[in-house]
Amino acid sequence: MTKVAILGFGTVGSGVYEVLKTNKSGIEKRAGQPVEVKYILDIRDFPGHPASKLFTKNFDDILNDDEISVAAEVIGGAKIAYEFTKKLLEAGKSVVTSNKELVATHGAELLEIAEKNGVSYLFEASVGGGIPIIHPIHQCLTANEISEIFGILNGTTNYILTQMIKNGKSFEAALSTAQELGYAEANPEADVEGIDACRKIAILADLAFGKELDPDKIYTEGITNIELTDVEYAEKLGSVIKLIGYCRRDGERVFARVSPMLVPKSSALSGVDDVFNAILVRGNAIGDAMFYGKGAGKLPTASAVVSDIIDAALGVSRPIKWVRTKNDIMEDIKSTKSIWFVRTDTKDKAYAKELFGNVSFTEIKEDEFAFITPLLTEKELAEKTGKLNGFKKFIRVLE
Amino acid sequence: MTKVAILGFGTVGSGVYEVLKTNKSGIEKRAGQPVEVKYILDIRDFPGHPASKLFTKNFDDILNDDEISVAAEVIGGAKIAYEFTKKLLEAGKSVVTSNKELVATHGAELLEIAEKNGVSYLFEASVGGGIPIIHPIHQCLTANEISEIFGILNGTTNYILTQMIKNGKSFEAALSTAQELGYAEANPEADVEGIDACRKIAILADLAFGKELDPDKIYTEGITNIELTDVEYAEKLGSVIKLIGYCRRDGERVFARVSPMLVPKSSALSGVDDVFNAILVRGNAIGDAMFYGKGAGKLPTASAVVSDIIDAALGVSRPIKWVRTKNDIMEDIKSTKSIWFVRTDTKDKAYAKELFGNVSFTEIKEDEFAFITPLLTEKELAEKTGKLNGFKKFIRVLE
Repeated sequence: MTKVAILGFGTVGSGVYEVLKTNKSGIEKRAGQPVEVKYILDIRDFPGHPASKLFTKNFDDILNDDEISVAAEVIGGAKIAYEFTKKLLEAGKSVVTSNKELVATHGAELLEIAEKNGVSYLFEASVGGGIPIIHPIHQCLTANEISEIFGILNGTTNYILTQMIKNGKSFEAALSTAQELGYAEANPEADVEGIDACRKIAILADLAFGKELDPDKIYTEGITNIELTDVEYAEKLGSVIKLIGYCRRDGERVFARVSPMLVPKSSALSGVDDVFNAILVRGNAIGDAMFYGKGAGKLPTASAVVSDIIDAALGVSRPIKWVRTKNDIMEDIKSTKSIWFVRTDTKDKAYAKELFGNVSFTEIKEDEFAFITPLLTEKELAEKTGKLNGFKKFIRVLE
Repeated sequence: MTKVAILGFGTVGSGVYEVLKTNKSGIEKRAGQPVEVKYILDIRDFPGHPASKLFTKNFDDILNDDEISVAAEVIGGAKIAYEFTKKLLEAGKSVVTSNKELVATHGAELLEIAEKNGVSYLFEASVGGGIPIIHPIHQCLTANEISEIFGILNGTTNYILTQMIKNGKSFEAALSTAQELGYAEANPEADVEGIDACRKIAILADLAFGKELDPDKIYTEGITNIELTDVEYAEKLGSVIKLIGYCRRDGERVFARVSPMLVPKSSALSGVDDVFNAILVRGNAIGDAMFYGKGAGKLPTASAVVSDIIDAALGVSRPIKWVRTKNDIMEDIKSTKSIWFVRTDTKDKAYAKELFGNVSFTEIKEDEFAFITPLLTEKELAEKTGKLNGFKKFIRVLE
């Protein structure tokens, strides 16, 4: 029998309770033992809730109860959740979580504390919601040297972009619909500015490359500047615009970035729509493997948390480890090469060709044109676009 | 230090050796210990091979060597491989394998022997080549009740169908090309008749539903009867033809099948081309998750075998278990409902409507037409098509 505490009874926390209850007999069979919730920690009251006896507002009830061997931290944030997680791990209890902010900012330290205390710190739910991605990278692809990971890591922005692409809605209108449907929060900043995707790509890079990146130093660009005109150009160029989290290793150097990109329709990522996520992992033995599913939501995320609870209960997880660095392993975004989609309102095509080589022009409205550059660093691009009279914007292109 | 024996030095066996050598330092770091090949068993000679000292023709060298804790059985087949696997497990050695035939036919028994002897029998490589699918289902999705699994499980047939769809090649011409490129064997029966896909869907059903199906009793239809005309009809109906392995649970009953299907272009599976595989898993918490990658090939398959070697060495795999049954849990294919693509050369459209309801007709050549039926059992379909004068063929449609 494993007794579990759920810390935080929001969307994910109530989902964890629901999944453990609904799939009780199957979970018990597969875990080889019953898994029972003994406490639910939340500062709020839930009068009349069927599990009302389990609620507590006192964290020490959980910390000091020797029967609790696993806690699910689904509070979120990197303050109180950080304190609680540290204390629980130090008390010899395993912690599983969906808290990407905490894993991205303090993962190395918490994994080290878990190792020292002979317990697990697991976070399958922190990236891709219910999609198995942390275990596959850490366990199933461990025979590979992973060179690149990239994908659609945020369901809210993917929903908004899909609405813009398929239904011709403006960013603002699509965001409103997403908010009405509960796909976007009242304050959508963490999603639309790419902060959520940044934390996720940081975790994937940490895991695959073994060194902790500071998420604050990862170049992060959201989708608030994407206009319908960009979407139309992309369509004409055989592409769609997606928010892509990207990381790559070159020897000891690591590069990570979150930005909108033109994704060619030949890429498997181009067909990933609505709130779905997909993550592509490139290894030297497997080639490309892709993982696809709902990247958020109550039950998918809870599904991943509960699978980690079972792993922690069985003690069968392969220890995860990455180390803190001074971040001097991170490659500067200015010096990495991309190909670029450039929009400009100058009519001086000849000059654009002089600057960028023999590029092809695409036009969808008067007084401007667009083209795809050859491989250039951001610095080189900035120098050249600085010389164009009517330069409007650039967007990276996924090769 | 873990010392390993490789049984069989064919494509996968040599790939396992290569991956362990090429990625040696990364594997050692992630496994926390060196992983070294001590023996390679093969009846053939490999004169001048750099690892020539490791070769043996005597299985007992491996069986009786206490230093060997893990063996990779990549011989294939269910005879000698079965004997060797049993003996190794009984001798307290873990066995990892890519051998789908053996796992599909004797999995329950071998898993039981492994459990009794406190060792592991692991087979991530048996389905989907290098794509992580066995561990994700068994471990990451364990909080779900899985209701359905289906997908493209055989790279050879998917390559042939892609050639037919994209390049208008006939089945025979596409098969020839596949053979020239090494994607199909000289005797392609196991692939084109669906036998390989049948073993794989049997393993996935066993794993997800906990009961061993007899692969010989699974309805298995290959792609040898698929003509270019079918491909053209599918295109006109907004679909592509794919060979789909499918399994489903209804309460205590399990249903499994391998057959060509019309896959609508709105399905993520429709875009999976060439030798790629993709497997969709439907669970009650996660919804749909899809796993995509190269389903065969030396290094991808070896990547999965080596990840299992590391799991076995670390002793961190969650025990897999399914039980033998008398197969009376299997639902009869005749009583399961599908929607069907029907081709007929009768001109009697009115009579077809009388039989099948208000169906829409598609025509691409003279003297025949096609239509999609409503949901019907195979028995109902046969009764109705028996009454059509010029009935030609039917193909299942993926809903």
